[in-house]
Formats: sequence, C-alpha cells, structure tokens
Amino acid sequence: MIYSIPTFKDSRGSLSVVESLYGVVPFEVKRVYWIYDVPQNTMRGGHANFTSHQFVIAIQGRIKITLENKDGIETYVLDSPEKGIHIAPMTWNTLVYESPNAVLLVLSSQLYDPKTYINNHDDFLNLCKR
Amino acid sequence: MIYSIPTFKDSRGSLSVVESLYGVVPFEVKRVYWIYDVPQNTMRGGHANFTSHQFVIAIQGRIKITLENKDGIETYVLDSPEKGIHIAPMTWNTLVYESPNAVLLVLSSQLYDPKTYINNHDDFLNLCKR
Repeated sequence: MIYSIPTFKDSRGSLSVVESLYGVVPFEVKRVYWIYDVPQNTMRGGHANFTSHQFVIAIQGRIKITLENKDGIETYVLDSPEKGIHIAPMTWNTLVYESPNAVLLVLSSQLYDPKTYINNHDDFLNLCKR
Repeated sequence: MIYSIPTFKDSRGSLSVVESLYGVVPFEVKRVYWIYDVPQNTMRGGHANFTSHQFVIAIQGRIKITLENKDGIETYVLDSPEKGIHIAPMTWNTLVYESPNAVLLVLSSQLYDPKTYINNHDDFLNLCKR
C-alpha cells in the first residue's frame, strides 16, 4: 500500500513530513539513510529482514519496488516525494532505480545489524513456509 | 561545524547513513521532513527553536545556511549528500536554496510544536542576551 505523506506547499516550495510513532510511520525511527548516484535501471535491495520495519520514499525520480511476503508479490512505483511504502519484517524487497538521478530515502526501525538480514531468496522462501 | 556522514560507495551507487543516539546525530530522531521544489535563490528558515535539535543535509544541490547564536554568526555551504549540519536549540537559521533542484533533508529531535519556535529576530536577540 502506498502512503500519502502529509505535504505543505506554498510559493517557497514544498515540505513533506513524517513523524515517528504519532505520524505516518508505525515505528520509531532509529536510522535514516539515503541512496543516490545509482546508475539508471540498477537493481538494489535483494534481501529481507527478520525484525526491521522500513519506510521508503523516492525523494527524487522514479523507483520501482517489488515486495514479496508469504502472501504473495506486489509491485509499486514510487515517483513522488509525497509517497511512501512501509516494508514490514519478513518482506523480500527489490528496487529498480528507473530514472537517472533517483534518490531513495529510508527510515528504519533499527540500527544496522547484518545478522537480521536474509540475503538468499531460497532461504527466504523456506522461512516463509514455516 | 560540518559533519561528514558515513558513506558507502560501490558500482551500484552511494549510501549515506545517520543513526540516532549511537551515530552521527546527537539526539533521537522524532520527525523527518524534506523540502523541495524551492525556486532558485529562495530564502527559507528565518526562525529559531527553544528546544529542538535538528540535523540538516542537502540531499541534492547547493544550500547556503547561516546560523546565529549568542556567540555569533557562521555561514556554511551544504553541497553534498555526505555533509550535514547540527542546529542546536536557540540558533537562528536562514537557508538559501542556491541551486534550482536543491532538496533539504531535516532530522528533528521533536514533534512539531509551534509554541517552541521564535519567529521574530528582535525577540531572538533579546532572548540571547538573557
């Protein structure tokens, strides 16, 4: 599901805002990162996480995101700084940076911990069957 | 002072990351917002806050930021997604969006509360003298 991010526009520009806990994101934000300088049509992601929630926004450009969980696969297009997607734990995600200057902003519920990642798709599918 | 943001680069692009509490930002992130579609050379900001900490990054483009506190005035240029500035409480800030597609990312230590803002510069200067 694509979330609409509260946005305030006037002649000086636009401001979109996400508040943890009380606002758009259903978790506390512990880590924020942004991905940029990605060659056009590069695929990134390709993993799932046991425990973390993420909320992702294409701050600029167009990014296609595919989410797979035990219930199936859905694909979304992020093409506005006013749209976001919540990625729940145990969701395999792949992202294609379709435009040349796309920038992805990620708000994450936990600090980086490589032990919480599932990097092999077959392992992911087996874990989903449990 | 300009902070260098931990950044990881490879052939698929670049990732810059900020972790609250344990990382770059000396506060917990309660609110995240981004400002975009700002006409070139527009000035924004023009206020101080009694209590909030903010960490600001020019995710794209070039933004000049001027910070004023009881000790004086400093001007910085943010022109890389790998640089950030910490704005402490009681700091009057003005930002000029020098390039046409500049995008500012702001991490804030508190939820929005208009009562915590000082919007008049004379009031700010008087408060600084106390």
